This record gives sequence, C-alpha cells and structure tokens, in this order.
Amino acid sequence: MGLAIKKITVLAEFDLDSYLRARSAAVDRALDGCLRRYSERSGNIWKAMHYGLFPGGKRLRPILVLAAGELFGAKRKTLLPFACAVEMIHGYSLIHDDLPALDNDDLRRGEPANHKVFGEGMALLAGDGLLTEAFHVMSGAAVLTNLPAELVLKLVHELSYAVGVAGLVGGQAFDLEAEKRAVDIGMVEYIHVRKTGALIRAAIRLGAQVAGASAADLRRVTRFGDCLGLAFQIADDILDILGETAPGERAQSGHSEWNKATYPSVVGIARAQERLKELSAQCLRELAPFGKASEPLRALATQVAARALQSNGKSAAGEIKI
Amino acid sequence: MGLAIKKITVLAEFDLDSYLRARSAAVDRALDGCLRRYSERSGNIWKAMHYGLFPGGKRLRPILVLAAGELFGAKRKTLLPFACAVEMIHGYSLIHDDLPALDNDDLRRGEPANHKVFGEGMALLAGDGLLTEAFHVMSGAAVLTNLPAELVLKLVHELSYAVGVAGLVGGQAFDLEAEKRAVDIGMVEYIHVRKTGALIRAAIRLGAQVAGASAADLRRVTRFGDCLGLAFQIADDILDILGETAPGERAQSGHSEWNKATYPSVVGIARAQERLKELSAQCLRELAPFGKASEPLRALATQVAARALQSNGKSAAGEIKI
Repeated sequence: MGLAIKKITVLAEFDLDSYLRARSAAVDRALDGCLRRYSERSGNIWKAMHYGLFPGGKRLRPILVLAAGELFGAKRKTLLPFACAVEMIHGYSLIHDDLPALDNDDLRRGEPANHKVFGEGMALLAGDGLLTEAFHVMSGAAVLTNLPAELVLKLVHELSYAVGVAGLVGGQAFDLEAEKRAVDIGMVEYIHVRKTGALIRAAIRLGAQVAGASAADLRRVTRFGDCLGLAFQIADDILDILGETAPGERAQSGHSEWNKATYPSVVGIARAQERLKELSAQCLRELAPFGKASEPLRALATQVAARALQSNGKSAAGEIKI
Repeated sequence: MGLAIKKITVLAEFDLDSYLRARSAAVDRALDGCLRRYSERSGNIWKAMHYGLFPGGKRLRPILVLAAGELFGAKRKTLLPFACAVEMIHGYSLIHDDLPALDNDDLRRGEPANHKVFGEGMALLAGDGLLTEAFHVMSGAAVLTNLPAELVLKLVHELSYAVGVAGLVGGQAFDLEAEKRAVDIGMVEYIHVRKTGALIRAAIRLGAQVAGASAADLRRVTRFGDCLGLAFQIADDILDILGETAPGERAQSGHSEWNKATYPSVVGIARAQERLKELSAQCLRELAPFGKASEPLRALATQVAARALQSNGKSAAGEIKI
C-alpha cells in the first residue's frame, strides 16, 4: 500500500496532460504543414485528407514516436516527420475501416465519417492519399533532418512491413474473415497484434531508432510496445462494450460489439480486465530500467489501461499497484 | 517514303514480341517472389493481392522500368524490385478504381473484378496491401542490390510523390469530380497527366536513375515519358470508344465512355488521333539521340499508338512516318 501511494505521488509530479497537449499541438502543426503544400489546386481530395487528420483523436501513435525518441535523446524536430507518417497511416486506416465495404460506420469520434461528408469514392482516395503521403514524408526526412539515408530507408522498410499484409492490413483482413466464423482467444490476439499492435509497436521502434537507441534498449521498448498495443486494443474493446466511447460514436454501426472478434466478447469483461492489468504491469516493468526519463511512456501506458479498469467501478491505480 | 520503308525494316530487325515476353516473364517471377513470403498464413488477403497481379496485363509499366534502366546499362536484377513496386502500385490503383465507390466495373481484362471475387472489403484491403508492399519492396532494394541508400530513398520519395495527391491519387480525384461537370480539353490533359502519366513517367525515371543516367539523359527520357503517358491514355480512350478493348471488358460498366473526361469525348476521335500522332512523333524524337540502344522504348511507343490509329482503318506505321 505504501508502494502504491508513493507511485501515485511520483505520477502526480509528472503532468501528463500538459505533456500531451504540447506534443499533440506539435504533431498538429507538422501534419498541417505536410498537407498545406497540396492545398491550392487539389480540391476535395485535399479537404478529405485534411478531414481525415483534423480534428485528431488523442494522437497516441505520433506521441509514442516522440516519447520513445525523446527517451533516448532525439530532438522533437527530427522525430516529427516519422510521427506524421505514423499518424497519416492511422488516419488512412480509420477512413478505409469506416467505409461501407468494411465496418460501415457513419460516425468517427462523434462526427460524420469521411465518406458521409465527401462520398465513398473520395474517402477511398483520401485514405490512399494519406497512406502514400506517409511514405513521402518519411522518405523526405533524411534531407530534412540530416539523419543517415541508410537509417531512414531501414525505417521505411520496417514501417511498410508493419502496416502491410504481415501487420495492419493483414489484421484487418483476418478481422473481416473472423466476422463470419467463431473465433477463439488466440485468434483475437492474433488479429489485435496485427490490426492495432503493429502500428503502435512500429511508432515506438521508429522513435527509438531515430534516436539511435542501443540494440538492447530497442528490444526492451519493443516489448513495451507489444504489451501497450495489446493493452490499448483490449481497453478499447472493453470501453466499446461498456459504452464509454465518445457520445454518438458507433451508434449507427451495423454490427454489435459483442459479435466482433474482441477480448471481452470471447472471454467476458472480467477476464479481459485481468489480462489488461497483467499487460499494464508488464508495460511498466519494461520501462523500470529507464527510470525517470521514461515517465511520459509510463504515464501513457497507465492512462491507456485506467479508463477501462475504472469503468467497472474499480480504481485502476489501486488495482495495478506497480 | 524511302525513309518510312527504311524505318519499318529497322523495326522488323528488333523483335518486340520476344523482348516483351522475356521481360514480362521476369516481372511475373519477381512479383510472385514478392508475394510468396506472405502466402502461408495470410488467407484471402494474399489470394486477393495475387489475383490483383495475376494474370497481368501487358506489364507496360514494369517493362518501362527495365527498358529505361537497360538503356543506360543497369542489370535487370537490380531493376526488378523497382519494376515490381511500380506494377504493384498499378495493380492497387486498378483494384480500387473498379470498386463500386469509383468506376463500379464488374470486369477487369475480361475477368471478374477483384471485388466480385473476394468482396468489396477484401478488395479494398488488397489494394491497400499492394500499395504498402510496393514501398516495402522498393525500400528493401538497397540491401538486395547494393545500390546506395541515398539513391533508393530518393526514388521512394519521388515515386510516393508521383502516385500521391500531386499525381495518381489526385488525378483519380479530379476524374471523380469531373464526372459531375462539363470538362474542357485542358482539364482532360490535367487529369491524364496525373492519373496515367505520373506512374508511366515515374517508371521510366526510376529505371534511368537506378542505372545512373546523366541529368541531361534523365531530362530527355522524362520528356519521352511525359509524351508516352499522355499518348497511352489517349490511345486507351480511343480504343474504349471504338470497342477495341478485351472482349467483355467494361461491358458491365455503369457509365458510357462518352460521358467521361476523355480526349475523344471532348474533341472527337479524329482530333484525338491527330494528338496521338503528334505525341508519338515527339516520343521518337526524344529517343533519337540514343540510337539503336533505345529500340525497345521506340518499339513500345510505336505499339502504344499503333492500335488506336489503325482502328480507324489507317496504318499507324504509314501515318507516323518517323
């Protein structure tokens, strides 16, 4: 109990909200700068891409790029092109995911989905445009930031693997096929690791590698990223079922959350929350050797789990006791 | 007339068919190798991506990478990753273009479109997967071929620009918007240059740069690429209207070719053919300084125009007289 109180005191010293606000604003400015060069003569495609990025959500993934990079001493300016690329890929995946051909969601973050505003064709192209632009921004980073071309090329190779058939796209495809048949918990984790985990893992690895983290440190933050990615998706699934999503979000969805390949729908809320607690604890264990410098990542990981644990009437901080 | 006869004799010495067969087979093998590593556990997404690439069409774009690279002395093996990337991007654009949200074509090359076989959701993801894999294959080329990382990164940057908002995706978006309003010939060229021209231009520039072409030579083949891209699209539009497409292709299309933003629908077949002849002649002029080494590109350019000129009962070779 003494340990739990001490931990809460340490966390209180670190102001996560102002940390997130500053980085989120930096990401917003950088994303806006990336798109601005196309604005003049690009018509609706520019508007649809912009709408896919603004207003943003929590900007978790680009902030993870910044936080992992800053942990190992990289400058924010050097990290921002990679943070933008990761957020553009996240934005593209949401636009395509919401299309009638996939999830058929009319709302995203409580606002009309991209295809409800611009039409299905333009939304499809806006997603394609964001995915393409992600690789353009990233491949331009070597000239912009003086990073070695070998490193930037390696990161393009790694990110394109993480969001392709072996990762994000493959996870979405398995999810689509899982809707037609019964799934077990192994399949749910398999989908989560790819659909959500791969990009979160890549975000953290990108930041760490831009900063020149050692091989051992990279392995450690990769394990942190793997746990965080799965924790994030399980938390999201729990909140979906407990109705803690943004007002109106998914209200028009064509399917019940209980019928999807999610942790709580397969093993129930209580066991999903147990798994979330385990993952949360493992996240913090991986960060322990980095000490105070890892406070932003620690606070982020704690926040990811907290809402989904609190929403069952329990205090997340009290439950985790790390 | 003597000149025209001489030219036909020279062309006869170069066996375009066997040239195309050999390169097309090499591209097929390389594409198959790229996808094969994902096949085991990837299910339908792999099948849908494979279906999007096989059987291929003419493989014009990857063959242009090879032909432009070989013109300046690059080895086929070094060029193949770039050729594959270009063909994957072409494949992705066709899959997405055929979706109901865009062209709503049930057939592609006389066979059921991707979404008619795998469903709209899987086809959407297969396109996303091919676009992503294109950048993965290309960014892996430095390690595979010993090309300098700086060069490969520059080419990733260039290709992602060519197929993004400023190129392919932007062209498709303008095309989509043009369907709703009257278009003039300037807008048609603007769309063509982006929707079709950008990738053809990029294919040629990629090949030339992999081979280390001089700045002056690169400018020359770029001009060749610009003319060829526009010629290709105009020829395609003429053939669409004259019904020379593959049997069954576009038969189920939801729109008449005359209502689209095409050259012949805006200025008529005769003027479109005049423009095609001009472009064809310009293509060959740009290649003249390269002499015999440019025969494959010359023969390709001639072939692109020939069918659309012959289909009006005139001999293309006789008309062009270069």
